[in-house]
Amino acid sequence: MNIEIIGLIAAVFTTSSFFPQVVKIWNTKQTKDISTTMYIAMMIGTCFWLAYGILINSFAIIVANIVSGLLVLFVLVFKIFYGNKGENKYGVDPKA
Amino acid sequence: MNIEIIGLIAAVFTTSSFFPQVVKIWNTKQTKDISTTMYIAMMIGTCFWLAYGILINSFAIIVANIVSGLLVLFVLVFKIFYGNKGENKYGVDPKA
Repeated sequence: MNIEIIGLIAAVFTTSSFFPQVVKIWNTKQTKDISTTMYIAMMIGTCFWLAYGILINSFAIIVANIVSGLLVLFVLVFKIFYGNKGENKYGVDPKA
Repeated sequence: MNIEIIGLIAAVFTTSSFFPQVVKIWNTKQTKDISTTMYIAMMIGTCFWLAYGILINSFAIIVANIVSGLLVLFVLVFKIFYGNKGENKYGVDPKA
């Protein structure tokens, strides 16, 4: 088995992993448990990966980071839009 | 500037980005807005990256993916432990 196949499978999983999170927020319209700092750091990291991919001419790194960058951006925009809606001061289930 | 520095900065950001999410869950004990599928896919991807790092003898890839693997595992364990606590059926802010 080609080693690069392992890297490709890895990239497909880590890149597409953000997709179910985008879908979940799209359906629930809730983002309060999601860390804004995480997605800002992920966005910065993705931009650096993209720059790195361009500098080393790696098509796989460029494509993977454009896709994850867009998905991370969606989560960030949703987070700004929906904020902490649904939060209650004591972090307690109101039905409990 | 060395191109590898760009890659290193990228890796530091994307790897450590999970840390604020772990801290947020630790403080709020709430995970309902977090997608389990995302973290399962991220965990699988991280394992493949780790295997890839071992196969190509890249110390940076190995270390980065052990760190993110542990952080992703924390989020998954928290998600299993806290589940959808705090969810209300209509996804509406109870204070609103």
